[in-house]
Amino acid sequence: MTSQAVPEPSAELLHLATGVRRAAIDLGQTSDQQRQDALAAMAVALEHHADQIIAANAADLEQASAEGLAPALVARLKLDASKLAGAIEGVRQVAALKDPLGARQLHRELNPGLVLERITVPLGVLGVIFEARPDAVIQIASLAIRSGNGAILKGGSEANRTNQAVMAALKQGLMQSVVSADALALLTTRQESLALLRLDGLVDLIIPRGSNELVRFIQDNTRIPVLGHADGVCHLFIDAEADLAEALRIAIDSKTQYPAACNAIETLLVHEAIADRFLADAVTAFGSVGVELRGDPASCGFGVPHAATDADWSTEYLDLILAVRVVPDLDAALDHIRRYSSRHTEAIATTNTATAERFMRAVDSAGVYHNCSTRFADGFRYGFGAEVGISTQTLPPRGPVGLEGLVTYRYCLRGEGHVAADFASGTRQFTHRDLPL
Amino acid sequence: MTSQAVPEPSAELLHLATGVRRAAIDLGQTSDQQRQDALAAMAVALEHHADQIIAANAADLEQASAEGLAPALVARLKLDASKLAGAIEGVRQVAALKDPLGARQLHRELNPGLVLERITVPLGVLGVIFEARPDAVIQIASLAIRSGNGAILKGGSEANRTNQAVMAALKQGLMQSVVSADALALLTTRQESLALLRLDGLVDLIIPRGSNELVRFIQDNTRIPVLGHADGVCHLFIDAEADLAEALRIAIDSKTQYPAACNAIETLLVHEAIADRFLADAVTAFGSVGVELRGDPASCGFGVPHAATDADWSTEYLDLILAVRVVPDLDAALDHIRRYSSRHTEAIATTNTATAERFMRAVDSAGVYHNCSTRFADGFRYGFGAEVGISTQTLPPRGPVGLEGLVTYRYCLRGEGHVAADFASGTRQFTHRDLPL
Repeated sequence: MTSQAVPEPSAELLHLATGVRRAAIDLGQTSDQQRQDALAAMAVALEHHADQIIAANAADLEQASAEGLAPALVARLKLDASKLAGAIEGVRQVAALKDPLGARQLHRELNPGLVLERITVPLGVLGVIFEARPDAVIQIASLAIRSGNGAILKGGSEANRTNQAVMAALKQGLMQSVVSADALALLTTRQESLALLRLDGLVDLIIPRGSNELVRFIQDNTRIPVLGHADGVCHLFIDAEADLAEALRIAIDSKTQYPAACNAIETLLVHEAIADRFLADAVTAFGSVGVELRGDPASCGFGVPHAATDADWSTEYLDLILAVRVVPDLDAALDHIRRYSSRHTEAIATTNTATAERFMRAVDSAGVYHNCSTRFADGFRYGFGAEVGISTQTLPPRGPVGLEGLVTYRYCLRGEGHVAADFASGTRQFTHRDLPL
Repeated sequence: MTSQAVPEPSAELLHLATGVRRAAIDLGQTSDQQRQDALAAMAVALEHHADQIIAANAADLEQASAEGLAPALVARLKLDASKLAGAIEGVRQVAALKDPLGARQLHRELNPGLVLERITVPLGVLGVIFEARPDAVIQIASLAIRSGNGAILKGGSEANRTNQAVMAALKQGLMQSVVSADALALLTTRQESLALLRLDGLVDLIIPRGSNELVRFIQDNTRIPVLGHADGVCHLFIDAEADLAEALRIAIDSKTQYPAACNAIETLLVHEAIADRFLADAVTAFGSVGVELRGDPASCGFGVPHAATDADWSTEYLDLILAVRVVPDLDAALDHIRRYSSRHTEAIATTNTATAERFMRAVDSAGVYHNCSTRFADGFRYGFGAEVGISTQTLPPRGPVGLEGLVTYRYCLRGEGHVAADFASGTRQFTHRDLPL
């Protein structure tokens, strides 16, 4: 059931999406080399169109300033020569990643002459809705083509000129390759981006890139699977047996290394046995780097300057604010996490391996960490070479998702006239013999 | 957005679901042996309660007859001593399956002392809604416990007494194990089963077992992921270069070996070059096994007795009816499949390997077969040892789903005080060195 706010797709949108799907079918059958060549051609075309892209961005920036867009948004909107060069370098890096397609995940003889394979294949068509940052078009388009998928993209209206210039360059690049330029399409109106949510059967996965509100709206208004997370309320638990200096360093890094990221911690849980000693140093240290601490009554008793309300435990600040709670033991920490975590990433600082292992088994988040910063929850840091998004859903793909999040698989069965009746009658028996992958 | 028809969960249902979730957290941390022992205890308890279960079933059957339930439904409802023994044997088979939990899928050093693992873990709680067959309770409960998941089950009301007797036995069995009996729960009212669809956050996956209508209703009325397929409109294409006798045997098996199954074919596509010869034999052969053929004008010209309407191409008959269409070439067959297939399983009969490989690459269904019956699309036949369901969704799990469809994974990262700032500053570098699995 989709909300009344989501319109039916127009004939134009259906036509466009059908075209992307058709192009994606051919794209899905290209070789590794052909897709690498297509990305190389996209990179060259972006270089050739650099002046137009930067000029289009300047016009977008001018309008944004005139309309009084917030400085943070203007900064994200900006695509200068150096940012563009970085994005083009990113295209070449994605080209160099291992092919996610054609991998044989299963190879099994069911009966002599009857052989089953499970092979990775593209999803089909991605629908990507993102806000502000126009370099996202470049990144997403290269991930899509690399993984054999078509993509329909919709960016923020404040970046319309930039996005159109980028898309024109990307399509020009594809024209120099065997991949059809129709495999990529850009939507420019809000009406179209909403109708995109109704294209089940034509779009296989929606990837939202933007605020939690955007993600939640999309999840609530489409039957198409959505790759993404709504919140990142991450926790760090400082155990009674933690190395307190190391634990503080991890806490500071987890909160401040990039507070706007979803993998930054929002709540610090402190074992009561070391709360006085730990918080004495922590209050000073966090204060000196500009972090506002909001504590429960116990931690306020140990010097945390502000009182937390119930709402603080489930708030993703994305800012230099940290909630602090003193807990009597590991079980209380686990209970708190179970109740308030968004199941993104949680960490424990302790020198007791048994305690750490209990924590790692009991916490059901996409990432569970021991003696390290939650900021490592990231596709690049995990060595995936690219990050499509981070999922806090339970089902795979979960956590940081690389190219493998953009593929699925297909079972291929090759026989010599095999029929099921022969197995039902006992004339033939299943051998189920695994063959080399 | 859920439909008005779906009520908010009652306080009792929330309480029950919270209890299942709590039990599932402990269950998720049990060892392989503990879960095997739990299944063994469930099997023994079912044997001890066999008389009560069969008596409860007799009462359900009596009421069903009195209420004039269709004979086919009565047959599915019946759980006699031999069917029960088979179901109990099934529990022991599931116990013997390889543990789906704790498998290390990734093992990577990110930096000396900072090691990432990806480990399979349970989903949490399954919501299972099924019609009629009471042995489904036994099968699903054993799959759930084996994979470390709690389960909330709702069966058809006509099997209420049987389902309750079975569930009582299963819980008694769990009480003889370390697994809490609260890990399994049975809902008995329609109101509750609808509200189950609203338990996002408490239920991780809904598994519908029943009619296409049931599956579609559930997909349209829940935000919880649904494992299942709505339709199985499968195709077999007889190429110009097919071994016609073998192709006919495959066609007959694909249609008639069990016509009510979703992996039976509903449409036969015949290359025009061999249509006259193939259909001459096929019309006789299908007629002799009671299959009604409905053809396009060209195939009616070759003796197919009934004319097909447009609706036939997208109908899942689940019966001894087969639509037949003559196509000019492979591309036309691919176009037909693209348009009408439910992306379950499609097959080609041909002796030309290049043609077969083109078909295998171009058809985007969960299963693509060459020279064998579509009836092999089944978890047991694939060697999974169990089948949770068959998914026609694009994203994994796709096709026949075994125990692996009931697990997800978690990233575990263990460090020695590692912080992200050291990598940003260049003090440390990522090594991304894969370690043995």
